[in-house]
Amino acid sequence: MTWLDLPDDTLFGLDNLPYGLFSTPTDSRRRVGVAVGDQVLDLAAALAAVGSTHAEVVDSGSLDGLLAAGRPAWDAVRAELADLLTDPARAESIRPLLLPRSGVHLHLPFTVGDYVDFYASEHHATNLGRLFRPDSEPLMPNWKHLPVGYHGRGGTVVVSGTPVVRPCGQRKAPDEAAPTYGPSRRLDIEAELGFVVGTGSLQGTRIGVDDLADHVFGAVIVNDWSARDLQAWEYVPLGPHLGKSFATSISPWVVPLAALEAARVPLPGQDPEPLEYLRGREDWGLDVELVVAWNGEEVSRPPYREMYWSPAQMLAHLTVNGASTRSGDLYASGTVSGPRREQRGAFIELTWGGAEPVTVQGEQRTFLADGDEVVISATAPGVGGGRIGFGEVAGTVVPAAP
Amino acid sequence: MTWLDLPDDTLFGLDNLPYGLFSTPTDSRRRVGVAVGDQVLDLAAALAAVGSTHAEVVDSGSLDGLLAAGRPAWDAVRAELADLLTDPARAESIRPLLLPRSGVHLHLPFTVGDYVDFYASEHHATNLGRLFRPDSEPLMPNWKHLPVGYHGRGGTVVVSGTPVVRPCGQRKAPDEAAPTYGPSRRLDIEAELGFVVGTGSLQGTRIGVDDLADHVFGAVIVNDWSARDLQAWEYVPLGPHLGKSFATSISPWVVPLAALEAARVPLPGQDPEPLEYLRGREDWGLDVELVVAWNGEEVSRPPYREMYWSPAQMLAHLTVNGASTRSGDLYASGTVSGPRREQRGAFIELTWGGAEPVTVQGEQRTFLADGDEVVISATAPGVGGGRIGFGEVAGTVVPAAP
Repeated sequence: MTWLDLPDDTLFGLDNLPYGLFSTPTDSRRRVGVAVGDQVLDLAAALAAVGSTHAEVVDSGSLDGLLAAGRPAWDAVRAELADLLTDPARAESIRPLLLPRSGVHLHLPFTVGDYVDFYASEHHATNLGRLFRPDSEPLMPNWKHLPVGYHGRGGTVVVSGTPVVRPCGQRKAPDEAAPTYGPSRRLDIEAELGFVVGTGSLQGTRIGVDDLADHVFGAVIVNDWSARDLQAWEYVPLGPHLGKSFATSISPWVVPLAALEAARVPLPGQDPEPLEYLRGREDWGLDVELVVAWNGEEVSRPPYREMYWSPAQMLAHLTVNGASTRSGDLYASGTVSGPRREQRGAFIELTWGGAEPVTVQGEQRTFLADGDEVVISATAPGVGGGRIGFGEVAGTVVPAAP
Repeated sequence: MTWLDLPDDTLFGLDNLPYGLFSTPTDSRRRVGVAVGDQVLDLAAALAAVGSTHAEVVDSGSLDGLLAAGRPAWDAVRAELADLLTDPARAESIRPLLLPRSGVHLHLPFTVGDYVDFYASEHHATNLGRLFRPDSEPLMPNWKHLPVGYHGRGGTVVVSGTPVVRPCGQRKAPDEAAPTYGPSRRLDIEAELGFVVGTGSLQGTRIGVDDLADHVFGAVIVNDWSARDLQAWEYVPLGPHLGKSFATSISPWVVPLAALEAARVPLPGQDPEPLEYLRGREDWGLDVELVVAWNGEEVSRPPYREMYWSPAQMLAHLTVNGASTRSGDLYASGTVSGPRREQRGAFIELTWGGAEPVTVQGEQRTFLADGDEVVISATAPGVGGGRIGFGEVAGTVVPAAP
């Protein structure tokens, strides 16, 4: 029982406590905050107020210090937070350190290292295969043997709310003789979950498939903005590049892995059985439900529990070749799409390449127009019996630069 | 005329002056150094000795400060270096700041941001196309319209001399029913040049094809180690991932762009003419000659002047979608291969997929064995009429981790 006055149905109860980075209109310092109810707790100040030895690690202007501190510190800070928010004797000293969330500005919470994007939804990969390669088998022969992924651009990961400038580049439709240059005409989203590495690993070593929780600090919602016309022309044979590298947005609150305990479920099933390094003893499917809203209207509910590959398998695969990982590395799941149309996490799938528009605020729509806003939110079961929230990742498309 | 006693044929004369990061057995501080002859100059100390205002910017434990300082600072420091190494009145104060290069330890000189690898040699792309996709046209339709590239792993860029652990992963030969797990059996190199971004650019903006010198600080040799069996199985449809991400080695000396003035040559010719954003007024072909030595024996001399796309075109393309760049971003050319067999910069090409071994120290060889060492060096014409050197990037293969 907390001494805070939280509504029963809050998505930010004591079983969530995600971390972010905030400043206020009157104090531009970037401080680590914890979302609780509709407030944000100044974490360093709160830990200092209760004499915690961890106050210093979170007092560094970003989440970087806490990420690097490792799992024992993550567990200890979470326990201290639970304690100071439930002990009535703390109320007087902690209450002044809570600010209304509506009044703070949220920043990119950590320094992004390498960004890898996977392709872990069988429904998404099958749909994209049909759309990009209509004359071939939609799934490549490797797809059910390994979590296919590629490196994206870490430097263009931005926090929710950052405007997305429509990218320019080369487009060539199959019936055109040569490519032309100009703003993307097929600007799309990809609704994903992203996993934030806290404790890295050395070059030449691997992270085992059962060691996820020792390395991953938490999860965010990702919108991997995609220019489908740029991507379709450029992507052979080395994969997506400019069609993706202009912007990737993440939600400002990092939900700790510990808060997702009640969301853990078995994977839907893997056939053939993967190679041993990808076979885990623990369930790391996640029953997270995403919601995609286009100009305020819900258009899709992608179910993360349908994903073929788990985040534990992704990390084991990412490092099986001895690639090092660093605190702040981000890896994302790839588009979350379920089997049904209204569960597809990208507009190219939802509108089947533009052939089957969706109705948004009364209009028939396919890809993104300038001025459009996309908001992706997510919730999951919490250990308290209710639900927890990831908050949202929002972005508005602004016209291409001249 | 320098007051230093330099051999006439030194590759590290006053027309070169590349920057690196060194420590010594008796002083573990990492200091920015400049290679001159067979010595290294302690740059911050030298600039301080002559009262330069730039001493502070290079006294930060890496090249990061100088990279971020921008082109006017790069030009000023280079002019100050020329001055203090030619003015006899400076000899007495500067001489004690010169250390034998053979006695210093060289470190990764800058913090690597995003790493992008291009694919800019027509000979290499054609050879790889034939080897990876024998039943198709070797060059994809996009190849002559844009510099194809993809993101690699910035966190696994290492300095010359770092051992390379043989990567493990999934391999599946075309005649095998299912993939198996184990150490790569087709470990290869890629001899490349890499370009180091000093002055970055904001998200939503572009770097014009004629603005290379305002953004790129200098160049290094790159060995983009490649596990061809891992790569062949994983790379469709999202491109290379684990086949490349285990290690990328760079030479420790960053050759300033200004030192490459005499190496600038026209490109071999582009047909069709590229789109306008890729058409530059200035020549940025580079007459750099690479030499690949395998266990001490020269096996290839890849000519950079044969590259189809210029580094100015690569940077313009990389940012045409508004992707931001940061100080420390690294982009590499892709394998440098010329038209002749002995000019191929990867062993998969040199040995035609292993079918045509080369003789190394009397043995028939195809891919890399544990214990093998590869050293790639490079030279170019200097503005002084002789040649300048990039030094070398070396790496020894060590057995896969258990």
